[in-house]
Amino acid sequence: MFKLTVDNDINLYLVNEAFTQRYVELVKQDNDYLSQWLQWPRFCKSQDDFNDFVKRSLHEYAEGKSMMCAIDYCGHIVGNCGFNTIKHDVKVAEMGYWLGKDYQGNGIMTRVCRYLIDYAFTQLYMNKAQISAAERNLPSRAVCERLGMQLEGIITNQEKVGDSILNHAIYGIHNTKIQKSAGPQLN
Amino acid sequence: MFKLTVDNDINLYLVNEAFTQRYVELVKQDNDYLSQWLQWPRFCKSQDDFNDFVKRSLHEYAEGKSMMCAIDYCGHIVGNCGFNTIKHDVKVAEMGYWLGKDYQGNGIMTRVCRYLIDYAFTQLYMNKAQISAAERNLPSRAVCERLGMQLEGIITNQEKVGDSILNHAIYGIHNTKIQKSAGPQLN
Amino acid sequence: MFKLTVDNDINLYLVNEAFTQRYVELVKQDNDYLSQWLQWPRFCKSQDDFNDFVKRSLHEYAEGKSMMCAIDYCGHIVGNCGFNTIKHDVKVAEMGYWLGKDYQGNGIMTRVCRYLIDYAFTQLYMNKAQISAAERNLPSRAVCERLGMQLEGIITNQEKVGDSILNHAIYGIHNTKIQKSAGPQLN
Amino acid sequence: MFKLTVDNDINLYLVNEAFTQRYVELVKQDNDYLSQWLQWPRFCKSQDDFNDFVKRSLHEYAEGKSMMCAIDYCGHIVGNCGFNTIKHDVKVAEMGYWLGKDYQGNGIMTRVCRYLIDYAFTQLYMNKAQISAAERNLPSRAVCERLGMQLEGIITNQEKVGDSILNHAIYGIHNTKIQKSAGPQLN
Amino acid sequence: MFKLTVDNDINLYLVNEAFTQRYVELVKQDNDYLSQWLQWPRFCKSQDDFNDFVKRSLHEYAEGKSMMCAIDYCGHIVGNCGFNTIKHDVKVAEMGYWLGKDYQGNGIMTRVCRYLIDYAFTQLYMNKAQISAAERNLPSRAVCERLGMQLEGIITNQEKVGDSILNHAIYGIHNTKIQKSAGPQLN
Amino acid sequence: MFKLTVDNDINLYLVNEAFTQRYVELVKQDNDYLSQWLQWPRFCKSQDDFNDFVKRSLHEYAEGKSMMCAIDYCGHIVGNCGFNTIKHDVKVAEMGYWLGKDYQGNGIMTRVCRYLIDYAFTQLYMNKAQISAAERNLPSRAVCERLGMQLEGIITNQEKVGDSILNHAIYGIHNTKIQKSAGPQLN
Repeated sequence: MFKLTVDNDINLYLVNEAFTQRYVELVKQDNDYLSQWLQWPRFCKSQDDFNDFVKRSLHEYAEGKSMMCAIDYCGHIVGNCGFNTIKHDVKVAEMGYWLGKDYQGNGIMTRVCRYLIDYAFTQLYMNKAQISAAERNLPSRAVCERLGMQLEGIITNQEKVGDSILNHAIYGIHNTKIQKSAGPQLN
Repeated sequence: MFKLTVDNDINLYLVNEAFTQRYVELVKQDNDYLSQWLQWPRFCKSQDDFNDFVKRSLHEYAEGKSMMCAIDYCGHIVGNCGFNTIKHDVKVAEMGYWLGKDYQGNGIMTRVCRYLIDYAFTQLYMNKAQISAAERNLPSRAVCERLGMQLEGIITNQEKVGDSILNHAIYGIHNTKIQKSAGPQLN
Repeated sequence: MFKLTVDNDINLYLVNEAFTQRYVELVKQDNDYLSQWLQWPRFCKSQDDFNDFVKRSLHEYAEGKSMMCAIDYCGHIVGNCGFNTIKHDVKVAEMGYWLGKDYQGNGIMTRVCRYLIDYAFTQLYMNKAQISAAERNLPSRAVCERLGMQLEGIITNQEKVGDSILNHAIYGIHNTKIQKSAGPQLN
Repeated sequence: MFKLTVDNDINLYLVNEAFTQRYVELVKQDNDYLSQWLQWPRFCKSQDDFNDFVKRSLHEYAEGKSMMCAIDYCGHIVGNCGFNTIKHDVKVAEMGYWLGKDYQGNGIMTRVCRYLIDYAFTQLYMNKAQISAAERNLPSRAVCERLGMQLEGIITNQEKVGDSILNHAIYGIHNTKIQKSAGPQLN
Repeated sequence: MFKLTVDNDINLYLVNEAFTQRYVELVKQDNDYLSQWLQWPRFCKSQDDFNDFVKRSLHEYAEGKSMMCAIDYCGHIVGNCGFNTIKHDVKVAEMGYWLGKDYQGNGIMTRVCRYLIDYAFTQLYMNKAQISAAERNLPSRAVCERLGMQLEGIITNQEKVGDSILNHAIYGIHNTKIQKSAGPQLN
Repeated sequence: MFKLTVDNDINLYLVNEAFTQRYVELVKQDNDYLSQWLQWPRFCKSQDDFNDFVKRSLHEYAEGKSMMCAIDYCGHIVGNCGFNTIKHDVKVAEMGYWLGKDYQGNGIMTRVCRYLIDYAFTQLYMNKAQISAAERNLPSRAVCERLGMQLEGIITNQEKVGDSILNHAIYGIHNTKIQKSAGPQLN
């Protein structure tokens, strides 16, 4: 499978049907947990659903519009991450991710996102990486803050999750900042 | 032509090829002025361009995704306004507008936007009306403030205008607010 | 809602989902009456059906190919009218309409059609307005005759309504005629 | 090439790229003559144009919507004929044809159309065959009359040919009539 | 129906919905026999299935990509034949056929294929006609040999029929060969 | 960039616009060499051409129909390889490749193809890997033979390269064979 190496523990694989059986297990096990802040776990549950997601994601990757990866942590697929949208005109890559509940607390998302921010700046020539976290999703906002991202605003009525309409906390980080703090080349 | 009546001075006409010759004149005359904060005056100049805009807008209106109107002020077409995006799931209507330079200073945009906010809440069943103004477009931000809209954030790298990548000041107003302040029925 | 004003009693609204619940009521109540000469009341009955009709009609309006309006008589939606086809090359607008049974006999259709004929000539630059009435639909043919239209022929096998294949009486009126008889400007 | 046999002199071949070089010659030679009553000779002149016509016609044949044939008279392709539209719901086949000027006066079109009317009734299960001739195209109207077709009306503003908007004389013949007059089986 | 004449006993008709009822009978009667070497009899059984086949085949014929014919033997439709693929760039026409079990042993397929090979060379300007027979379909390979075709190879894993993956024996004949052996013009 | 590791010298990267400038250089330098047996170097020369190739290839990868990779040899992109077609029904993966002239003679293609054959069997669950070499392309046929593939036939008229129509030598290798000869797991 085609991969990117984040560090000794973590690889990112371009999404592939080979992972969808594992996705079904993770989402079955953690459905309540993931459905707190995400729309799709209510609708995307079967292997066919995830195969559709993989195919759609790869077509968008072909168009240069997004890039979705499975997260491999110590040999296990534990979640998914990537760029939901790559906006070439305004040079912004919007990041998104989810992680199985059992794998929280190992700093996986922070390491993955730091890698993706660098990838956005050096491989995709973006000026800004952006994360939209639900206003009340404090763990996700904590990741953004650990990454040194700036809170740019709380925009109301941005996403429907179940019966709730959520506000988004928009976090951004610009290329100039990462270059100062980057130190030695990550990858 | 199909119309909405704002007040004694102002009518809004659903966009129509009948107005595109007039649009060409306005944009020719005010191109520098309009190009400060808008992308399209650099590319949309001829009557064919505006006819394409009209056709595209009407197809989006057919899908319930947007609604574009010509602004008639005292019998003259003076600009364009409407909902750039109507998001039924999160109940947000995003407003946009432009006005010929000579017609600034008559309170036209404030009256039009107040009408549109009411239309969004009462006819389209939206919970929120939203305006994205370029961060430094102070006249447009002044309209938002006169309308009682809240500044929700300054989101960076949101739009490319010419060679510049602009930040957006996002303003929002919610249905509960307008109902308190609305007093007698507008239309 | 976007509107055209026919006279003190009658407005025409560009078709809109807001009217489809009312269409369902009218067609439910008058199904037998309307199915005598029209195909669609057998198939188009639910609000979803009429929403599809509205969307399809608005897309055709966007293309300049047709124009469908709800008829508002003294504040009630009582039927539908408009141009089924607008043929720019041969400058012919084909008119069509239906009216709830209870609203027959008030001269509504004659007033509406006179307005539409004028609209076709002055706003759409047509040379001819045309109505195809079923050969035996005498009330509809009476409207054509009251409007001063010419019977151009009875063309056989033109439309399937239920199990019957109907002949069409084709009526036409040309721009030169209406100008002579128009007298004071209608609208 | 796939063929239908009309009589000892005349075969009809399903349109095919093999004939398009010949069509180019015929239309080049008779352009003024054919352009009197037909739209397409002004625009369809090159072999590429006719190859597009053939491909489009065969796709429509595949859909059961039309059937276009080259006319072979004594071993030479002399024109084109067929059903421009086959309307299964109202059981009407609309016929159309053109013939090189040099081949006029041999009764070719009358024999071809008689065959096609029979084909429409016996092979396509139509109830009516119809021809729309330009009002002033007297030779074509004479063919209709020789075939025993009825003039159903003169419908104004039906077709644009060059700068003129033409009226159509609509002729029809019904299955019951042809059966009485048919005598021995044609084909 | 549009036809090609092979000899006194055999005509080929361009596929047409008129034949699909007969196809249903043949395939119902001979399903086991035909399913030995062909994929489609497992899936294509009803008149709707065959009508889809006819429509799809005619669209491919319109594109010049294939040509499918019903085989008429002494006034009865007994099978289907034609060019599955016509490759204009490499000048190869790939032939395919099936025949009802009761009509085997009359030399029908050999006569039909000899006609089609000639048609490919003289009407379609091909250099090669090709047949892919299942490796163990000895009757079909015998037809190829009777036609003087060369065995070019046995290519493994070429077609899935039921649960089996079949190898193909590829037979070819080139235009130069047929011209030498052809003797008097076939058609 | 997403990669597969073949051995210490060789990585395969999923095709990406990042490589297309390098492809332009290679094809410019070796155009005559590559055009001997390949169609595309005559037509695919500019960076836009290769960007189209990349996009098209990634869309096919998304559909599971093909998989195209850039070959990285000791840190330099030296050619392209992959599966031109992945046939899930008959479990055959057809391989293709090209290599810059300067990089011939290092056993690169043999190592790459051995890796791809293993990938086809273990990751894509194919039963057969297949290579179609031009009959007279002896170096390519030598690669096939070094890989232990069987010559299944010489099929005539298979590909047009320039003005020549080439025959193909078809080589295949089946999963059972590779398992016997594979010895220790390759990757």
